[in-house]
Amino acid sequence: MATRYSLVVPVFGNETAPPPASTVAAGKTRVKGVFVRDLTEVTDVRGNLVAGEIGEFLPFAVARFFVVHGVSSRQIRGQHAHRKCHQFLVCVRGSCRVIADDGKHREEFLLDTPARGVYLPPRTWGVQYDYSADASLLVFASHAYEPDDYIRDYEAFLRLVRR
Amino acid sequence: MATRYSLVVPVFGNETAPPPASTVAAGKTRVKGVFVRDLTEVTDVRGNLVAGEIGEFLPFAVARFFVVHGVSSRQIRGQHAHRKCHQFLVCVRGSCRVIADDGKHREEFLLDTPARGVYLPPRTWGVQYDYSADASLLVFASHAYEPDDYIRDYEAFLRLVRR
Repeated sequence: MATRYSLVVPVFGNETAPPPASTVAAGKTRVKGVFVRDLTEVTDVRGNLVAGEIGEFLPFAVARFFVVHGVSSRQIRGQHAHRKCHQFLVCVRGSCRVIADDGKHREEFLLDTPARGVYLPPRTWGVQYDYSADASLLVFASHAYEPDDYIRDYEAFLRLVRR
Repeated sequence: MATRYSLVVPVFGNETAPPPASTVAAGKTRVKGVFVRDLTEVTDVRGNLVAGEIGEFLPFAVARFFVVHGVSSRQIRGQHAHRKCHQFLVCVRGSCRVIADDGKHREEFLLDTPARGVYLPPRTWGVQYDYSADASLLVFASHAYEPDDYIRDYEAFLRLVRR
């Protein structure tokens, strides 16, 4: 069983507390183009299966996939945007948090089930952190790896999206 | 850490002992069209990443993906062939065994790392079993789910491939 994190959200005051992670709602978010999508779940005595059909809900053809695993909870990954590459993130084991930022709005998502994913369009600043010890984060990408597609400086990202 | 299984292969006699699982060799197998493929591994202080590019080594466009998890070690999954659908299997967490059978040759593969996958072309009888408690098996498929694409009877499969 994955370790589940819950953020304590104070009822009164304390404006510095982090916002609650979006653990439930599938659908659009406040971040431009970003959405949370439930996968199809099939559970029976033989175990669980979650499935997604590319054309149905991934708005891009998959050119590459990668799996991030063995990440210490202290490590922060991502911290970049892509110029062209679309991504869809599913935490297939354990849990991690994903931050998506369009330069204007920022939201954080707790991915703690393989049955839900987050779509990040190009020009979205993305951060992943707070990996559980057993976390495996699966990412589908619309493009092959291209170093020039990465924007690694947040100020440069802001200049681009505000242009 | 995934539980690792090892089959004891007797040096002398005992023809009923199972064949050793292919835990190491990437490349072609004795089963028609089936191959084992290593993914690209990138390991650094921030954790591990394994990646695959679709065009480079998956000989099909991905239309669907699914993740099988929470399977008891006693359960056997698969036990069918596809008429048209190509599949690529990666155990992204834990371990499981995959049997591939072309009606003439049969091989078993131990998938115990996210850095290696098995490609099963259409008309391959596939079985997955011996899932570790933490196993998550990721499968890429070339087609959307179509019940008519499944051949669930082994004798019918043999008739098809021997036709």
